[in-house]
Formats: sequence, C-alpha cells, structure tokens
Amino acid sequence: MIYRFGKRFALLALVLVLPLFGDEGLWLFNAPPVQALKTKYKFDLTDEWLRHVQLASVHFGGASGSFVSPNGLVMTNHHVGQGAIQNLSTKDRNLMETGFYARTRAEELKAPGLELRVLQNIEDVTARVLEAETPGLAPAQAAEARNKAIAAVEKEASEKTGLRATVVNLYSGMMYHLYTYKVYSDVRLVFAPESAIAFFGGDQDNFTYPRYDLDICLFRIYEDDQPIASNHYLKWSPTPVKEGDLVFASGHPGSTGRLLTYAQLEFLRDVAYPWTIANYERRRGLLKDFSRRGPEAARQAQGALFGIENSLKAITGYQSGLLDKALMDKKLKDEEALREDIRGNPELAAVYDKAWDEIAAAEKAYAPFYKLHRFFEGGAGFTTSYFGTARTLVRLAAERTKPDAERLREYRESAIPGLTRRMQAVTPVYDELEIFNLTDSLIQLQKEFGTMAEVRWLFTGRLAEDVARELVAGTKLKDPAVRKNYLDGGLETVQLSDDPMIKLALLVDPVSRGIRRKYEREVESIETTNGALVAQALFKLMGSAVPPDATGTLRLSFGTVRGYVENGRKIPFFTAFQGLYDLSAKHGNRDPYVLPPSFLAAKAAVRQATPLNFVSTCDSIGGNSGSPVINRRAEFCGVLFDGNIQSLPARFVYSDAQNRSVMVHAQGIIEALTKVYKAQPLVDEILGKK
Amino acid sequence: MIYRFGKRFALLALVLVLPLFGDEGLWLFNAPPVQALKTKYKFDLTDEWLRHVQLASVHFGGASGSFVSPNGLVMTNHHVGQGAIQNLSTKDRNLMETGFYARTRAEELKAPGLELRVLQNIEDVTARVLEAETPGLAPAQAAEARNKAIAAVEKEASEKTGLRATVVNLYSGMMYHLYTYKVYSDVRLVFAPESAIAFFGGDQDNFTYPRYDLDICLFRIYEDDQPIASNHYLKWSPTPVKEGDLVFASGHPGSTGRLLTYAQLEFLRDVAYPWTIANYERRRGLLKDFSRRGPEAARQAQGALFGIENSLKAITGYQSGLLDKALMDKKLKDEEALREDIRGNPELAAVYDKAWDEIAAAEKAYAPFYKLHRFFEGGAGFTTSYFGTARTLVRLAAERTKPDAERLREYRESAIPGLTRRMQAVTPVYDELEIFNLTDSLIQLQKEFGTMAEVRWLFTGRLAEDVARELVAGTKLKDPAVRKNYLDGGLETVQLSDDPMIKLALLVDPVSRGIRRKYEREVESIETTNGALVAQALFKLMGSAVPPDATGTLRLSFGTVRGYVENGRKIPFFTAFQGLYDLSAKHGNRDPYVLPPSFLAAKAAVRQATPLNFVSTCDSIGGNSGSPVINRRAEFCGVLFDGNIQSLPARFVYSDAQNRSVMVHAQGIIEALTKVYKAQPLVDEILGKK
Repeated sequence: MIYRFGKRFALLALVLVLPLFGDEGLWLFNAPPVQALKTKYKFDLTDEWLRHVQLASVHFGGASGSFVSPNGLVMTNHHVGQGAIQNLSTKDRNLMETGFYARTRAEELKAPGLELRVLQNIEDVTARVLEAETPGLAPAQAAEARNKAIAAVEKEASEKTGLRATVVNLYSGMMYHLYTYKVYSDVRLVFAPESAIAFFGGDQDNFTYPRYDLDICLFRIYEDDQPIASNHYLKWSPTPVKEGDLVFASGHPGSTGRLLTYAQLEFLRDVAYPWTIANYERRRGLLKDFSRRGPEAARQAQGALFGIENSLKAITGYQSGLLDKALMDKKLKDEEALREDIRGNPELAAVYDKAWDEIAAAEKAYAPFYKLHRFFEGGAGFTTSYFGTARTLVRLAAERTKPDAERLREYRESAIPGLTRRMQAVTPVYDELEIFNLTDSLIQLQKEFGTMAEVRWLFTGRLAEDVARELVAGTKLKDPAVRKNYLDGGLETVQLSDDPMIKLALLVDPVSRGIRRKYEREVESIETTNGALVAQALFKLMGSAVPPDATGTLRLSFGTVRGYVENGRKIPFFTAFQGLYDLSAKHGNRDPYVLPPSFLAAKAAVRQATPLNFVSTCDSIGGNSGSPVINRRAEFCGVLFDGNIQSLPARFVYSDAQNRSVMVHAQGIIEALTKVYKAQPLVDEILGKK
Repeated sequence: MIYRFGKRFALLALVLVLPLFGDEGLWLFNAPPVQALKTKYKFDLTDEWLRHVQLASVHFGGASGSFVSPNGLVMTNHHVGQGAIQNLSTKDRNLMETGFYARTRAEELKAPGLELRVLQNIEDVTARVLEAETPGLAPAQAAEARNKAIAAVEKEASEKTGLRATVVNLYSGMMYHLYTYKVYSDVRLVFAPESAIAFFGGDQDNFTYPRYDLDICLFRIYEDDQPIASNHYLKWSPTPVKEGDLVFASGHPGSTGRLLTYAQLEFLRDVAYPWTIANYERRRGLLKDFSRRGPEAARQAQGALFGIENSLKAITGYQSGLLDKALMDKKLKDEEALREDIRGNPELAAVYDKAWDEIAAAEKAYAPFYKLHRFFEGGAGFTTSYFGTARTLVRLAAERTKPDAERLREYRESAIPGLTRRMQAVTPVYDELEIFNLTDSLIQLQKEFGTMAEVRWLFTGRLAEDVARELVAGTKLKDPAVRKNYLDGGLETVQLSDDPMIKLALLVDPVSRGIRRKYEREVESIETTNGALVAQALFKLMGSAVPPDATGTLRLSFGTVRGYVENGRKIPFFTAFQGLYDLSAKHGNRDPYVLPPSFLAAKAAVRQATPLNFVSTCDSIGGNSGSPVINRRAEFCGVLFDGNIQSLPARFVYSDAQNRSVMVHAQGIIEALTKVYKAQPLVDEILGKK
C-alpha cells in the first residue's frame, strides 16, 4: 500500500533518520547497513564477508564469542566464561583466582552444561506467522495463533535440518525470522587468566573507561572427542587498530528499548527499574556480608556477586537515561511529532494512531501486578538454583504432555535437548549460599505477599531461614541421578514426589502460571500487536533504515576507533600495559587494583607500550560481551567486553558523542599470552604459525 | 480361531454354564438372552419389543426410571428422586416430610441440575478401539491408546448426532460399545409421597423383605417449556402380577463383580471393603450426632445419612458374600479349574494363563496406596460439596485446554454440557453440615497423612474444625455467579483465585492426579488388559452366554415373580396394604414405622388387600433402583426399589434360591394415588383414561 505524505511528514522523517547517519545500529545479518557503510565509509559489505563473519561468530550463553583458529578455538570474555570457570573450580582448585592454561589438549577441561551455538541460516517467515492471525482477533488470541504458527515453523525446521530452530520476533512482532543453529555441547576450557587481571578495577571500574582488563578466555569445541574443524574463523589482525579505523562488532546484544513508546519508558522508570535496583542493592549488600564469612564463602559468592554488581551498574545507567529529563523530553517530542503526522493522514490515523494509547493502557494495567509477576513467575520469591531446577522439572513434565504449539515457549520440543542437558549437568551448588539467598527472598516474599495462602502455607508460622534451611537441606535435587529420575519419570513422578523443593514448585505453579497468562494477555500481547503497528508506522515514514531493537540474536554493528572528550579532558582511544602497572602501583597493588603474581613477575618482560584496551563508536549492549571486533578484512582486532558509562542510556537513545564500546586489544592479548603466560603454543595456533 | 478342547474341558464348561440356566444376567440390549427366554419361558424376544423398552427406559442420575405416559411422565423411586426433592425443599417447605403433588402442570417444580437421559443407540466399536493398540504395548500405553480412540469415537458421534455419546467398556475391555443418549435437562417434580411411607421401615428394613414401601416418585420432562411427547412409554398392566409370571427389569445396574478374579475379590475383602465400611460406620455415627442438634439439622443431614446407611448396608452385604468361605472356595475352585484347562492347551496357555497372575500382582501393588488414592483422588480427605465444586472448576479449566483425547475422561467434550449445567445449578448447601463433614474428613486425613507437606500446609498447626470452618466460611463457591465466573474465566481465573476452596483444590491436585495416574498405570490398565484376556478365555470356552458385569448402562434382566423360603418359613411373593397398617400399629406407629397423616386418614378408604410390594428373581444391583418391571407385553407391573439381603452377595455370585428384587406393585401405586393422595388426574394420565 502506498501512502502519500504531506510536507510536514517529510521534515519529520528527516529528523528521525538523522541519528542513523551516526554509527547507531545493531543490524540484522539479513538486512545489513550496506548503504550506510558505502556512503559513510566507502566500504563494500559483500555477502561473502557477511557469511564468513556469521559463521565465525559464536553464541555463548547469553553473550558472544568467535572462532579464532581452524581447530574450534573460541575467544570470549572471562566474565562470559566465568560460570564455566566457577563450575570447574572447587574449594581446592579456584580457577577464578589462579587462572588456567591447558598446555596440551589433554589438559583442557570439559565445562559441565555449557552449550555453544553457531548461526547457520536466517529465513524470513513473517508471512507464515502472521497469516495465522485471522482478522478481528483480540491481541491475546492473535498472540496465541502466532505462537502456534511459530511452534510449527520451528518444529518443521528442526526436523528438516536437524538444527536448533528458533523464530525471532523483530520490531515487536512486525517481522518474524527463523534462525537455525548448529549446537555444540562438548566445550572445554583452554585458557583463563586470573580474575584479578580479567576484572582489574573490579566493580569500581566496570562500565568505565580508560580500562586495563585482560577480560578474555578461550574454550575449544569438540565433537566425538576431537576438536571441530572451524573453517570459518577470524584471522588475527597483523597490525594494531588506528584512530579512525572502521571496525565491526559481531555479537548477540540482549535487548534495547529504542523503539519503545514513551509509556513503556515511563513504566521502566517508575515501576520496573526502581524495584529491580532496590532488589539488587539489597542482594549485593547481603552477598557481601556472606563473602565476609571467609575466603571459601567469598569464592562461592563471587559469581553471583559479580552478576548482581554488573546488572546493578547497567540498570542504574539505563535508569540515569530515563531520569534525564532532556532525553525523555526528546523521546516524547519525537513520538508526538510522529503521531501528529499520522493523524494528518486519515488512512494512517485509522490504523496506527491508537497503538500508543493501547500500549499506555497496558503499562498502566501491568503496574499493580508487576511485583506478583516478578516474585512468582519471575522467581524473585524463591532465589535458589534448586527452585529453578524444581520448576523446570515440574513444568517440563507437564508441558511435555501437550502438543508442541500449546506449550510454554521455553518447553517447546526444539528447546528440550538443551534443557535436558542442563538438568543433567553436574555443577557445584553451595547449600549455605542457597539457604542464604533463599532466606532473603522468602523474607521479601512474606513482606509483599504474606497474606496469600501459598505463602502462609509455606511458612507455616516459621522464620524464613528455617523454611529455607528445611527446603535446601531436604531437597535431593543436588543429585543428578534424582534429577534424571524426574526427567524420565514424567508427570506422575513429579506429582507424587515428596521432595520439598518439588512440592514448593508445585505449590506456586498455579499462581505463577496464572500471573504469567495475565501478563501475556493483558500486557505482552498488547505490546506486541501495537508495537508492531508503531514499527509499521515508522517504516511507512522512513523505509527500512531503522534496525530492530536487540533480541539476543546475531547482529552486526560498525563504528570507528575513536577517543572522546569527557569533562573537557581528551580520553585516548587506547590504553597500554604501562597504564595497568601504574594504576596498580598508585593503589598500592590493593584490591580491586591488585595484579596477579604472573603479571607482577612478567613486568620487565612485557613491552609496556603494547595496547591493552581500546574503544570504538560501535553500537553495543549487554550480550555483546565477547563479540569479536574486526576490521574491513574481517580480521580480529579485539574482543568487546564493556561499554563506558555514557553508553548505558544508549539502551534507549544512541549517541556517538561519548558512547563507546570497550575492547581488549588483539595485540595486548598476544603480549599477555606470550610474555605473562608463556602460552606460545596457543599464540602460534591463534596466529597460524605452526 | 478354533481350539480343540479335551474331555476335561467340556465338563468344566458345563459346570460354568449351569448357573446361567437360572435367571442370572444383566443383559445387553444388543446381545439379549433370546435363546434362554425361548428355551426356559417360551418367550420370543423381538427387536420391536426391545426397542420399545429401551426408548421407554430412562437413565436417572446413577439409577433408573421409565416413561409411564405419552406426556413425558417419568416414574422412578422416591430414593432416586430424593436429591431433587431435597434440593427443592427449604427450612419452611420440607418436601421430604410433607410429600408433594402438583395438581396442575403449572405447579410442577423444576429440579435444579437434574439431567435425564434416554438411550437412543448402541453400536459395537470394539474394532476401532482395539486397533488403536499396536502390538507389544505395555498395559498403561495400551490404555492410553484406547482412551484416545475412545475420545475420538465419542467426539465424532456427538458431533454427527448431536447426542451425548459415551463408549462403554464391557468384559473389562474385551468389547467397546458406543452408547448415544438424548439428554433432557428441564425435569420437574410432579409427585412424591412423604418419606415416611416411601422409606417405611427405614434403614432397619432396607434390603429386607417382606416390605411395605411406596418408594416412588414422578417427574415430567419438558422441552421449550412444554412436556415432551414420550411416544415410547410403558402402558400400565391392567392385571396384577401372579406367582410364576415372567417379568423383566430394564435399568442401569451400576456394577457387579462376577467376572472378577479371585485376587480381585480378595482385594475387596481385605483392603477396600474394610476401609469403606469403617469409614461409613464412623460417618453414620457422626451424622446421627449432627441430626440430634434439632429437626432442621436432621432435615439437612437426611439425604447424606440415607445414602450412607444404604451404602453401608449394601457393602456389608457384599462383604458377607466375600467372607462366606463356601462362596470364595467355589470362586477359587472355578478359577483353578478354568486355568487348569487353559494350561492343558499350549496355544491357550501361552495367551491366557498369565492373566490371573498379572491381576493378582496389580492388586498387591495397589494395596499400599489404596488409602492415598481414596483420600486424595477419591476426595475422602475433603468431604464437602464445595471441594467437589472447586475440584471440578479447577480441573475443567485445565482439561479444557487439552485435546479431547488427552483429557481426564470425565472432562471430555461430550461430558462438558452436563458438567457445566451442574456447576450452574442452584441447590441448597448447608454450611454447618459442610463444616461438620469436612472436619471429620480432615481429622482422618491428618491421622493417615499428617506428615505430607500438603496436609501440614493445610493445617498450619490448627485444629481440623478451624481449618474446615475457615474453608467453608471463606469460599464464595456457594454463589452461582462466582461459579459461572470460574467457568467462563478459565485457567487464569482459577490460577489467580484467592478462594480458599479453590486454593485447596489446587494444592492437592498434583498429588491427586499423580496417584490417579499411578493407579491407572499400575492397577487399572493391568486389570483391563488382563480382565479382557480372562473374559476372552471364558468366551472361548462358553460362547457368548456370559453377560458382562454391570457398567451403569442399560441392561435387561428377567425372572419370575416368586416367593421364597427363609429359615423354613415361606415368604409370599407380595405384601398388601393390610400388612403396612398392621406393622405400623405393631410398632405403635413410631419411627421408622410411623405412617404419614395421609395414610392414617385414608385407612378406611384403602382396599387393604391391594398388593403394595412384590418380589421376583430378576437379577439386579444398585443402580437398578427405579427400573420398571414389565411383563411379556412390556406393560408396567411395578418399579424396582430394592433387593433383599440375600441378593447382596449376588454382586459376585448369582443364585435364585433366595435372591430377590423388590418392587412397588403397579396396583398398589394406583391405589395410593387414588385413595390416599386423591391424585385422580395423575392416575388418569397413567392409565390413559383421559
């Protein structure tokens, strides 16, 4: 359909499109920014280049990685591999503290439950998904119809290809693309530095720049007990990046909210973020208390504490954007201008104008039950990994009896192999820490929902700690054989279980499912239907120059290697080893600026001018951690591990004035591996010198 | 397949067949005892006769009734209509005590929630059900496959015919017949005598003979606010039955266990009946206590008390058979002889011999979880009608989301209209009585399963009565609008309910479903698969001369009007009004032999020699209550309302020496309606004199 637009609109479109002449954009591999790159950088983005980068990119948990040798060697961040490193640690072998290097393949350590994926293909299935919606369906019914179509598409694709198939919802539901992945589940740890150098500066320097972190680690993918042949891998750039160089990041940004409406941003600002921040603040304090019990307690809590501090800083940064009146005013003005133009065209107005109001109404409806949703379906009332396991076993048993299309989405047939593997992985769980976390969440649960029957029943008049202790001490879910028994036994075994954690999961399942349905029906489906309309309106006005918000799937961003100005001071585009040693010395080599013995010992050997970290204007967000940053020749220049503090509001509005992604420099990596870790065979493999 | 049998077998077959030359048998309408009737009674059972009787027979709750006029008038027992009569009673209008007669159609009272059915057709669908079983399936999987096939057959039939369609499992699963019913839901009370005369002699005389009960009542079926045209109705026999007359009963015997194996009988004797009898004994005592609170309390408890006393007497009678060593020895000897013969033929032995052992193993497996099954899935832990309602709403919401074939059988699409109607019916519930019953069952629950999480949670340290009071006082399920809201709202409304009774149903649903599945998998399916083999073996040896055990569906039995000898005393085949008045006088007209004022007032007018009750050798069992008893011309001779005490062991072994069904005599009914109740218009309608 073709709409004619008045003069006013043409102007607006210009305003809206303008920011995209910056380096904004987490672009789809099947809708890449060919024109922008040609115009701004005279770069010819070819299909071969894209295909190669796609196949060299690795989905690593919720984050990113890349192949850096033909033998299945995967580079990512230390903080991305941290879960695996912790799972491979014990009281007597703390790999977080000591680091790890497998000098031979035989020494490589298999990470339990870890699963990496490589995207093979993207197919546009929008028509097939949307044709499932018959006209006149309410948003919730439309969502149900689409979900059935999606499940069918996924099932068909995974049966046809043998690959993991997932349909991704883009532009809030305006487009649906089918992503098929090759999945690898034998992943072994090859190299990890000490966490002191990987996370140098700690929480204090997290999301800041300048930085001096060797935030890397390396894994290797095996199949049939042999390293895989990773034909598409990134060759190491022989020369260091220079200021002004065009670079690309290929990774899996988790989520952005740039296309959210003003009402959605208000909801985040006024409801979701305040609760989330307060919750993380409290939990951070408690985990620090726990860590003070002794070095072993500190080791156990380290992973969770890192995660919470990281999230807390990120969300606080996002919230700072929403609390910035100028940013919000601009959002409101843009939105009003767009709606004004839509209203100027009766045909457009009839279709699109009410979308914003519907979303606003949905946000308003959500606020009163947001906490119930978080505490029950979100699990915030039951913070223990055992509850997660119990719920998964309980729901898997129930959902498996349903046709694929009618299941909760995370239990669709395509998800089951990964889920089963996770349930059978042997990973360390520390009961005292579990009790500690669960106690806190139960206290919050009782405070918020103490009059609910489920909560009264669970407490039975006792203190939260006694309840938590009974649950954790009583559960047998730590035993993988027990978990396997539930997996195999199905519904009856779950229903007749006398495991207290399974009982808890059964107890809260009805209200959790109920609140989830209510959310899906009253909020999510309205956001999807109307968010798709908002996106369509935008497309009608701007063509396809707006990339979709991040969805945890593979995206390409581009930008230049560039310093910036902060408080009148020029911040250079890279840091060097010299700065690392200086900063540590300045702080008396004390936490969080303590250098590991390896770095202290190697000081004289290290070439101090070697670049360690650098920045670029490449757009990125959480989930991009571990993304390879590459040059025009698709050569590896570094691995993205952070964004500076100014980049956080870019969750909602990108600007390249000060926003920067922060990378570990390719040359710095080689310097550290060679001089500090004496890992010459690894360097040879990476540089292809064998 | 044809098997050759040795001499030994021929003899055995003779032994087994012999009893069937008596009047044994609850015969299928589509496999009627044509030959036996011809041989023994020179009676030609025609298709027309059968079709007419089938269409004149009415399924009335779990029992029986028949059309006795062309205007939708249905005759049944007072104790069958009692639920409806009680539901139509209030504190100030106790129809149980006063009786009821609608002199005009306008005065007829619509019974809430009552649904009558008339069987239209029977079709053999054995092939379609059994072909769903692929060879080599375990019993539980075979059951699942059959259930899916059954659901499909039912769905197809109800969609094609618009009738209620139910597949009936015969011979433990050797045969499957599809029954289709026309369902009527506007049913109005026309006439009921006082309970004093309907149940004259009370519990004391229940299951005895001679008797003097006017255990009748009459309803009328309406459609579109008009009485239906019941073209197939039973004409009144102009002459009273005589000793030796051939009569038939057409009704819905609930269940018999004549084809059960010895192990199954042992299970009933040693596990099921002892618990059931003790449970009823205790509840009877408690309900009598409750009744002593005053006349209104007595009125409220009357229905439940009658039900319990009736069941208690019946089960005690069944158990007396199982405790009768001679009966059990005979059962064992017959079974052993049959197995011996099977073992004599290798081909038969390979297929059938292990069936008895498999059943025995299943019974042994069941014993340890029998009580858990009864208390949770059977609801014995939650004796209040509110729990039944809550569970139905909870399960209906869940089951409705599943494909028909995968639902719990009582929530299949074909059952939903009736279920929905029941949920919306406005029937009186008495909270103090509910609390009283629930308290008792919770005490038992705690005694048996007090360490289970569900029970501990429910009690939360309180007394059973406080828990019961909170549940009953707190539930809003007494409000039909609230029930409708759950019916309409579906899963989410149920899951987010804060109604304490709904919460209770949700709390115990997982373990209830679990134990049901365990029962179905470990017991029921084994009994079905192997019971079918036992039946097949019997068929191989005896042809189809063995009717299947009762299944609550329409059956025809036959016999003669005949007195019997008890303790050397001849018991005449009928009683008369004279005996009624004498017996009452002998007991000083005191409960349970008190006559209602109407009968006292009419004494002079009543012809004292008029027969009131009579007996015949017709085979019957619980569920046959309300069955019309008819003569060769299919004329109404009386309505079956009881069996004598000797008939109870016939649940397992029929004998016509003393077993008798007890009927209200057709002429007695007319006498009472005319002389006592002055219900001439009703009599005219029945006798077709208008």
